[in-house]
Amino acid sequence: MKKITKLLVANRGEIALRVLRSAKEMGLQTVAIYSEADRNALHVRYADEAVCVGPPASKDSYLRGDKILEVCRQLGVDAIHPGYGFLSENAEFARMVKEAGIIFVGPSPEAMNVMGDKLSAKQAVKAYNIPLVPGTDEAISDVEEAKRIAATVGFPILIKASAGGGGKGMRIVNAESEFEEQMQLAINEATSAFGDGSVFIEKFVTGPRHIEIQVLGDEHGNIVHLFERECSIQRRHQKVIEEAPSAVLTPELRAEMGRCAVDVARACDYTGAGTVEFLLDDQRNFYFLEMNTRLQVEHPVTEQITGLDLVKEQIKVAQGLPLAFRQEDLHINGHALELRVYAEDPQNNFLPDIGTLTTYVRPQGPGVRVDDGFEQGMEIPIHYDPMIAKLVTFGATREEAIARMLRAIDEYQITGIQTTLDFGRYVLRHPAFVSGNFDTNFIKDHFTPESLKPAAPDETTAKLAAVLTAMLLAEKKPGATPAATEAPVATASAWKRNRLGVR
Amino acid sequence: MKKITKLLVANRGEIALRVLRSAKEMGLQTVAIYSEADRNALHVRYADEAVCVGPPASKDSYLRGDKILEVCRQLGVDAIHPGYGFLSENAEFARMVKEAGIIFVGPSPEAMNVMGDKLSAKQAVKAYNIPLVPGTDEAISDVEEAKRIAATVGFPILIKASAGGGGKGMRIVNAESEFEEQMQLAINEATSAFGDGSVFIEKFVTGPRHIEIQVLGDEHGNIVHLFERECSIQRRHQKVIEEAPSAVLTPELRAEMGRCAVDVARACDYTGAGTVEFLLDDQRNFYFLEMNTRLQVEHPVTEQITGLDLVKEQIKVAQGLPLAFRQEDLHINGHALELRVYAEDPQNNFLPDIGTLTTYVRPQGPGVRVDDGFEQGMEIPIHYDPMIAKLVTFGATREEAIARMLRAIDEYQITGIQTTLDFGRYVLRHPAFVSGNFDTNFIKDHFTPESLKPAAPDETTAKLAAVLTAMLLAEKKPGATPAATEAPVATASAWKRNRLGVR
Repeated sequence: MKKITKLLVANRGEIALRVLRSAKEMGLQTVAIYSEADRNALHVRYADEAVCVGPPASKDSYLRGDKILEVCRQLGVDAIHPGYGFLSENAEFARMVKEAGIIFVGPSPEAMNVMGDKLSAKQAVKAYNIPLVPGTDEAISDVEEAKRIAATVGFPILIKASAGGGGKGMRIVNAESEFEEQMQLAINEATSAFGDGSVFIEKFVTGPRHIEIQVLGDEHGNIVHLFERECSIQRRHQKVIEEAPSAVLTPELRAEMGRCAVDVARACDYTGAGTVEFLLDDQRNFYFLEMNTRLQVEHPVTEQITGLDLVKEQIKVAQGLPLAFRQEDLHINGHALELRVYAEDPQNNFLPDIGTLTTYVRPQGPGVRVDDGFEQGMEIPIHYDPMIAKLVTFGATREEAIARMLRAIDEYQITGIQTTLDFGRYVLRHPAFVSGNFDTNFIKDHFTPESLKPAAPDETTAKLAAVLTAMLLAEKKPGATPAATEAPVATASAWKRNRLGVR
Repeated sequence: MKKITKLLVANRGEIALRVLRSAKEMGLQTVAIYSEADRNALHVRYADEAVCVGPPASKDSYLRGDKILEVCRQLGVDAIHPGYGFLSENAEFARMVKEAGIIFVGPSPEAMNVMGDKLSAKQAVKAYNIPLVPGTDEAISDVEEAKRIAATVGFPILIKASAGGGGKGMRIVNAESEFEEQMQLAINEATSAFGDGSVFIEKFVTGPRHIEIQVLGDEHGNIVHLFERECSIQRRHQKVIEEAPSAVLTPELRAEMGRCAVDVARACDYTGAGTVEFLLDDQRNFYFLEMNTRLQVEHPVTEQITGLDLVKEQIKVAQGLPLAFRQEDLHINGHALELRVYAEDPQNNFLPDIGTLTTYVRPQGPGVRVDDGFEQGMEIPIHYDPMIAKLVTFGATREEAIARMLRAIDEYQITGIQTTLDFGRYVLRHPAFVSGNFDTNFIKDHFTPESLKPAAPDETTAKLAAVLTAMLLAEKKPGATPAATEAPVATASAWKRNRLGVR
């Protein structure tokens, strides 16, 4: 066994703090790194040692692999946990770490390379019969051949630039008659944007759900899956509410997707914690999208339903230990939800709203977990992802987890900046979410900036108006019961009730 | 079904807040009561409505059942949750509540009466073959007959005044030769203290563990048990650390004790949540002690290992709903610990240390739950129980729950008053606790005020001294490795690390 005694966390914010907590529980010595913008951050105070690695910009600090390795040498660090983001999926960094004789808490650089590229990933899993979105395996520029393939795959079809990104050179084609024209437009757009006119064509999955499977592998060939996470509630193509288990997976489909995820991991000899992402269409067909070769932001929901500490599992595997459980030992207990609390303004297209946390009081009580990296009075730095916290709730059932999330949102006190808390309340009360009948178009289909307009104070006023109206009506019709007076009046926050003077 | 729409919580502090949270998740309207000393308490702010019921002294506020019922009438309350302590075990109050047409969230007054008296409790369970501590069923004053019974029961024997309490008139007799004299002394002591010289005699259980079983019954005759809580770590005969499951129960013994606890509940037609307390001797024999007819302080450890919300279960049962599960549906998942964080000075016989919470920062992160009723800047009122919080941790194993508790204790920042946090750390690191081999004598056997003396700063100094010594030795023996310099230096709190200036 490669014993780890001193772990450096090459990250910041909530995930740095979260990794440090597990490391501490394992009796490890801990080292934090920080940029000049994070001098007073909680992860800096929490670690046994902390080293400043540069100016605020990520490229000058958290992305400076060379400086991080220098810190490791100076302080006798024997392992690095990369968290998510920053260097976590950088195979070259993982290789440098390994060559320096330090344990990289993550998969091998080879596995990262294979899964880091969508084409090589598809190539790798070919032998395993993993369902892929039907389409071309390779870039194509011959319109006639593309047309033939499109006819086989069936419409609607998605055409996307092979060099693409950010939606450029991307076209949805609904019928064969439009195909030629749209492909030509896509090629032109791709040529002018990337200097490369080659495109892929694949089936356009309408109303898809984004479902991912957590996997865990060791260096002895054991790989298990830890069930799914439903991540369909997204804004700007980024997840904002996640849950486990999904409201729509049957035990059979869960087992089938789990088997596929394990095969994907096996295809690249995966070790450690990873996530296999799938699209699920409205016919319950699933398609492999990609594999994330790191700890996922939303890993806590999996921890809550399995009882496992994924960071500890990562560290154990990195030390060469075999997994302590087999697939049949793992079970889902209860239901968990995560709301990402961002410093963003949902009424202004979810644009970051950076500032100072004038008030910051976390919710408490049974079934609530808050992973964050801030405290009252701190500033959300402009240099990084504007996530303030991950608010996680869990309960015996989905219903209970939702009720707890609503209760926790009410308790959460944040002033000084706009957050996604009200947005979260809106989603969790929406019939589509409550019924489980939603997909990645949720925000497009169900949310406008006006959705948050009748906010709590107005709601109270509206209810009050209804009550008054009912009372007036009751006066006019003697004997009528003014039922509306008994309607509970919702207030904005659990902490903002007025105390009565009654004795 | 008797639908509850508006619930009054007839309590204060952490348990009031905890009940309010569950009520809110169930969509109930909530009413808090408070004394003049609790004007700014969190439970007052949290409830939809809050009413002051009198001056600080409990007898003038939280124990004023008449005032509480008046509040119910004024505000249209249809149910009362009594929490624990105060009126929770007052059968007369429960009867008054019922007569006022209000639901009492607890068992029937009859069940409370039967279990409220140790003799009638023993009488009630007689038909169920529940193991009782061997001895006299009734008070005795005939020394010769007592001697005969003592010989049958076997020594050591405990003689206790039937009117007794607080250890008065209580004698441990180790051998038959001492019996007559000791009984006479006990009778004299009881006569002068209580004006009643009758005594009981029973077997003195040496090195007992205090193990209790959580039960839950509905109005349809269904009763289940929710496994055990180990409550042997006590100071001044009061629990301070609890855990579930117990480190020493086999599945067979657990099932057997569970069956007995259900029978005890059945003996009094118990409804709602209750706790059956047992002594377990060093031969793994168990004896029924008493039943607590209310929610227990340490109920969160049971919630964590079963996934149930006991307050919600209480409220559901009180509405006449049948339990939604049977015994075979219930399973233990993981391990949970609770440390009661009291405003007490463990170095001064655990005497209350009342004052202001100058600093108050709760621990966070996976597997940590804090049930409290305070925030920074608040004062711990002198009028009530000096408990600040219940720090609960849970993990996949007992080992993990302990590691998390130690990590959480390190994170907990409380200044302004003495607390039981350091004491908790001492117990959780003690070999007897870690091994599971302990009983109710733990503090007597293993703790003195000096136990906390080599606190963290001194420890650091000691380690530093060891390092310096090793370095000196190394200088004297060239080539020798100064291994001690690599010894990790433990520091007091996870938040008090020094940041290094290294770049």
